[in-house]
Amino acid sequence: MDPLPASLAQAETPAAVIDLDRMQHNISRMQQRMDALGVAFRPHAKTSKCIPVVQAQIAAGARGITVSTLKEAEHFFAAGIADILYAVGMVPGKLAQALALRRQGCDLKILCDSVASAEAIVACGAAHGEAFEVWIEIDSDGHRSGIRADEPALLQVARVLHEGGARLGGVMTHAGSSYDLDTPAALAAMAEQERAACVLAAQRLRAAGLPCPVVSVGSTPTALSASQLDGVTEVRAGVYVFFDLVMRNIGVCREQDIALSVLTTVIGHQPEKGWAIVDAGWMAMSRDRGTQKQKQDFGYGQVCDAAGQVLEGYTLVGANQEHGILARSGEPDRDIAARFPLGTVLRILPNHACATGAQFPAYRACRADGTTERWERVHGW
Amino acid sequence: MDPLPASLAQAETPAAVIDLDRMQHNISRMQQRMDALGVAFRPHAKTSKCIPVVQAQIAAGARGITVSTLKEAEHFFAAGIADILYAVGMVPGKLAQALALRRQGCDLKILCDSVASAEAIVACGAAHGEAFEVWIEIDSDGHRSGIRADEPALLQVARVLHEGGARLGGVMTHAGSSYDLDTPAALAAMAEQERAACVLAAQRLRAAGLPCPVVSVGSTPTALSASQLDGVTEVRAGVYVFFDLVMRNIGVCREQDIALSVLTTVIGHQPEKGWAIVDAGWMAMSRDRGTQKQKQDFGYGQVCDAAGQVLEGYTLVGANQEHGILARSGEPDRDIAARFPLGTVLRILPNHACATGAQFPAYRACRADGTTERWERVHGW
Repeated sequence: MDPLPASLAQAETPAAVIDLDRMQHNISRMQQRMDALGVAFRPHAKTSKCIPVVQAQIAAGARGITVSTLKEAEHFFAAGIADILYAVGMVPGKLAQALALRRQGCDLKILCDSVASAEAIVACGAAHGEAFEVWIEIDSDGHRSGIRADEPALLQVARVLHEGGARLGGVMTHAGSSYDLDTPAALAAMAEQERAACVLAAQRLRAAGLPCPVVSVGSTPTALSASQLDGVTEVRAGVYVFFDLVMRNIGVCREQDIALSVLTTVIGHQPEKGWAIVDAGWMAMSRDRGTQKQKQDFGYGQVCDAAGQVLEGYTLVGANQEHGILARSGEPDRDIAARFPLGTVLRILPNHACATGAQFPAYRACRADGTTERWERVHGW
Repeated sequence: MDPLPASLAQAETPAAVIDLDRMQHNISRMQQRMDALGVAFRPHAKTSKCIPVVQAQIAAGARGITVSTLKEAEHFFAAGIADILYAVGMVPGKLAQALALRRQGCDLKILCDSVASAEAIVACGAAHGEAFEVWIEIDSDGHRSGIRADEPALLQVARVLHEGGARLGGVMTHAGSSYDLDTPAALAAMAEQERAACVLAAQRLRAAGLPCPVVSVGSTPTALSASQLDGVTEVRAGVYVFFDLVMRNIGVCREQDIALSVLTTVIGHQPEKGWAIVDAGWMAMSRDRGTQKQKQDFGYGQVCDAAGQVLEGYTLVGANQEHGILARSGEPDRDIAARFPLGTVLRILPNHACATGAQFPAYRACRADGTTERWERVHGW
């Protein structure tokens, strides 16, 4: 059988492409900022779920990582990374898995924000002779989980842990509300609110004679907006490694900083409507419509040419499972079939890099010289 | 090390659970309907992407399957299923993969809706001595892809294929707009519109002396709403196998028919807000908010107890990557920590079964006797 032309055979789409130059730039920018602010940096691996990406973050100066599932912890520990924060509240049913990791030598830190959880942790620790390292989650913005820094529950939980034989490792918070903001002033104020709440929690613990070595804060928007981090020992951030259109709308990156895109092929047209149909539907882009309520709605993603240059005004305006609908804003582009003929390869910048990456078993990591490598991701729980 | 209690150790969450009784009921209902309407049934494997699910559909009487990616085609062909429709428009870059499948004995049918695509198919066929079986995609509702049944392009495309040595297998359409409807009358009208358009296209081909053995229509809502299918030879549908909250709102199933749910654990509370935090965030549920614009918005999903009984009024009102926010509609449930204590296991019915299933590497298939089995899914492209 004759080979098909290399250019066609190579275009396996959809694919999740990492632009390694952009990624490296994003990693350096964040690490330099953290160095300047005098804090350690613990990137959140949930964005990439990918060993070479995390290794690049560590090579740049990161100390330890954050994970969102115990499967990620197992995956990165097997790759030689031992200092891991599991940043989701611990429940009794997951203690056996956490214990197994610690027994294998993983320096796993777990999270707690209630007396019930603290009691389960110390009971398991006592039963198995294990001093779990526990960080207390602080609610700095009413966004989701955690104990408010001024609540009596903070000291209660800390005492249950401390007196029960757990190791109080510190306090941590995540100002997730920073995702709702889009001005430098509001972002700086949220970064200060996040810092102040976490530092206050640490002060209350220390004033009560309890240990609190670590004060950990962070989200990508606040990490890039804080003007000072007095009292903070480390910062966590995830999506900055790739960035995305949500972060562009928040104002902490430009479109040309976005390192993750979905490579796609034009598979058809509806010229009267000005549509090109592409093979990146929601299965590739994810259903994330994070820019829908922001200052600029990019639909299911911003269209770029195959080299990654933004094609202004062209977005994915709709998505089915394996079909994306590409159109121009404003008047329909009736020349769309000539502009993007059948088989044209394009790239789509995603709303939310964490969600889009998760749709793929692996990335295609692209170097500036055009060579690529397959980089696997962790999938599932 | 002492074992943890079995009930806790077993609760590995989040997990995608299939209720096999419900699934079998959904499969029988659809197959009986198709038998009564006198048409063959070709289920869409894109919903489950899972061999045992598809085998159950075939055991009930399905003839052949539909897939949304060539990777699915390879996966199901390797499991012994040869009659496969790849229901996404063919592009030059994917012909080598399609050709390889046919050379291995797969009875793969491919799709075409433009002269450009037809020309690429016949050129590849001629170069490799392969008579591809091609179905022409018909646009019956302006939803996405396809040629309208009355367009001159229909005969043009058919002639390029037929004269170029491809095998004209038939016409197919998918009335995706049926997802926007929610009354029996509107659904029946859309089913008739879908049928009439596809039959008209077949009649035009036959009148022009071109072969058109297959007339294939379908979507879950229209398949369950058609009153007659004269001239149609087969129907396709996907999500009916599990159903979901979107289908419930459209009116083609009840909540108690939904066979897919996400098993989740309560990991914390914010009692003042009436929130329980669970370990099913959008990574588990997907970002699909399909019920957002329907008659009842279920947020990120309807909460059920561990046995699958609906807990009226409780939904996931928010989702982060690994955190779901569970709340009651109306007044905050300030007793939520007592109602759903830390560690409580619940099930969440999804907005969209295709999207939620795709977040998991495998299902936990649950029999009525409580035994479960791990059923793998295809992931990626």
